[in-house]
Amino acid sequence: MTENKPLTKLSTLGEFGLIHHLTKNIQLKNASSLKGVGDDAAVLDYKDKKILVSTDMLIEGIHFDLTYAPLKHLGYKAVATNASDIYAMNGTPRQITVAIAMSNRFTLEAVEELYEGMYLACEHYGIDLVGGDTTSSKTGLCISITVLGDADEEDIVYRNTARENELICVSGNLGAAYMGLQLLEREKVVFQTNPNAQPDFSGYEYILERQLKPEARKDIIQILRDKKIKPTSMMDVSDGLSSEVLHICHDSGVGCKVFEEKIPIDYQTFKMAEELNMNATVCALSGGEDYELVFTVPLSEYEKLLTIEEISIIGHTCPKGEGYNLVTKDGKEFELKAQGWVNFNGKDE
Amino acid sequence: MTENKPLTKLSTLGEFGLIHHLTKNIQLKNASSLKGVGDDAAVLDYKDKKILVSTDMLIEGIHFDLTYAPLKHLGYKAVATNASDIYAMNGTPRQITVAIAMSNRFTLEAVEELYEGMYLACEHYGIDLVGGDTTSSKTGLCISITVLGDADEEDIVYRNTARENELICVSGNLGAAYMGLQLLEREKVVFQTNPNAQPDFSGYEYILERQLKPEARKDIIQILRDKKIKPTSMMDVSDGLSSEVLHICHDSGVGCKVFEEKIPIDYQTFKMAEELNMNATVCALSGGEDYELVFTVPLSEYEKLLTIEEISIIGHTCPKGEGYNLVTKDGKEFELKAQGWVNFNGKDE
Repeated sequence: MTENKPLTKLSTLGEFGLIHHLTKNIQLKNASSLKGVGDDAAVLDYKDKKILVSTDMLIEGIHFDLTYAPLKHLGYKAVATNASDIYAMNGTPRQITVAIAMSNRFTLEAVEELYEGMYLACEHYGIDLVGGDTTSSKTGLCISITVLGDADEEDIVYRNTARENELICVSGNLGAAYMGLQLLEREKVVFQTNPNAQPDFSGYEYILERQLKPEARKDIIQILRDKKIKPTSMMDVSDGLSSEVLHICHDSGVGCKVFEEKIPIDYQTFKMAEELNMNATVCALSGGEDYELVFTVPLSEYEKLLTIEEISIIGHTCPKGEGYNLVTKDGKEFELKAQGWVNFNGKDE
Repeated sequence: MTENKPLTKLSTLGEFGLIHHLTKNIQLKNASSLKGVGDDAAVLDYKDKKILVSTDMLIEGIHFDLTYAPLKHLGYKAVATNASDIYAMNGTPRQITVAIAMSNRFTLEAVEELYEGMYLACEHYGIDLVGGDTTSSKTGLCISITVLGDADEEDIVYRNTARENELICVSGNLGAAYMGLQLLEREKVVFQTNPNAQPDFSGYEYILERQLKPEARKDIIQILRDKKIKPTSMMDVSDGLSSEVLHICHDSGVGCKVFEEKIPIDYQTFKMAEELNMNATVCALSGGEDYELVFTVPLSEYEKLLTIEEISIIGHTCPKGEGYNLVTKDGKEFELKAQGWVNFNGKDE
């Protein structure tokens, strides 16, 4: 935002003026997007492909804090995390609809920043924004995005189709987004105590980016396709590794053994955890918002998997009777547990 | 809600427990719903039909007031108003996703009521609830619903395809929902002044129902099909008749002449307007939330239209150069204007 020029009140545009202003430059990219913004409904044509649909809601004060989350990043993240749900089905995201409620304190320039971030993510993931709703709120900002994607029926990967004695894999590394959040929260407290203090983020750029501008693992889906590896089950890691592994095992009727030493954790995540006296493994298991992919593959794919740098084998499934187990670095076994299964605290907490 | 038995805190279930509790009895009705709640995304199959998608967001304090809107009605209304967007494209609603944010003050029983209303509407309109997101909010209740529907390409009716010298028609009657809202607001003030006062709604049951439990005009779509009348353009009346007629004319590049005396207004709407010293026509033009259908048809359909009791011919389109006109009962002509085009006050205000 340019601080020098006067900011524009939303009320000067009118609702339809605002929608027109925010959507006038849209050029539909996908052949399946027949008609976008501007009617009672968008019109799509998926021909013989199956339709994948997912919805997420982001609430100010619960999922994001505008003290440190720039609106452009927030817009990007809102779209990326939705795209992630479609990749997690082994599909391709194609369209989104965006519903936004915001209070009068938002200026046109602020809303433009938010949309700029959303359009940037749409560009990156090849998604068309085809509809939505723009309304006012009495308090905070609320964003709800529905994403539609396509897939051939035989390619779709569900979460309830893992089998016994398969490899459990995860892309990238875990816990970084959560440690980025802890760092931001720490610096926020410092700032509140001393508004002249400059935040100190040096050496932690990676974990900050993981929190503020996460990416959906489009690349992993492509790599798996190129290597002709089809996961037997898959989810994206939004609530933390434990929660997702438990979902897969519970829904598939299998048990699991996850090895702590195999869980991929970045150096900055370790370092930040140490600085804050936290356990990096716990952050990886329960932190959430990593938007990595966790999936199972048959043992026969083991050698192929070893050639993929971005994928870690973290354990294996087993008969249900053997339970859900975490094997610690010193060889002890604990039951794998997940916070999301206990507390009603919103999706990403 | 039964006041006698203790109410259940949401925190006792956990997020996944709550989702399971709210969705466990779903039985998918549509052949196009392959997989509903329970994975990263729902899976749908529309075969050779086109996909219609629309999203709406309802915010507490802006779109509804829980002082007088029962949660069950609110759930019903949220689904019905979304279904209305699909009918307005001449399509059939098939699936919804529901994203909800609510604060700790909501009990399980309250959320159950809300979902009961949504399921009732799903039943009535033949819709499957296939996915969503459930999260917490710091303040009010926020509901965002995305509806998907299908249509054959040749059946879809857009809003930008009206032609000059066609009839402008509207279903049912207008302004009733708005007058219902005024009545509820009046009784709320009475209640706030004297909590022992009983609200007086006698003789106004119809306008109350239009506000609290509106229906989408599935029946009108069916009647038009049966009579082989295909509108040349169509919208649902959510923001008020003026706004929608202006949308159709503006987007189609035509002008219009709407006759005040032809605008269908119910007796209760007139009576309430009189009681509150308001102009019933203004309420019909600008009130909104009627969820009736406004559409254009060729002049050649005139005689067929006369046989349909539920449809009124309120005017006609004309060349763009003749402008957007309202002809009053005493024969004067005014420019048709709409509130939604001026103020940024939320969709339904």
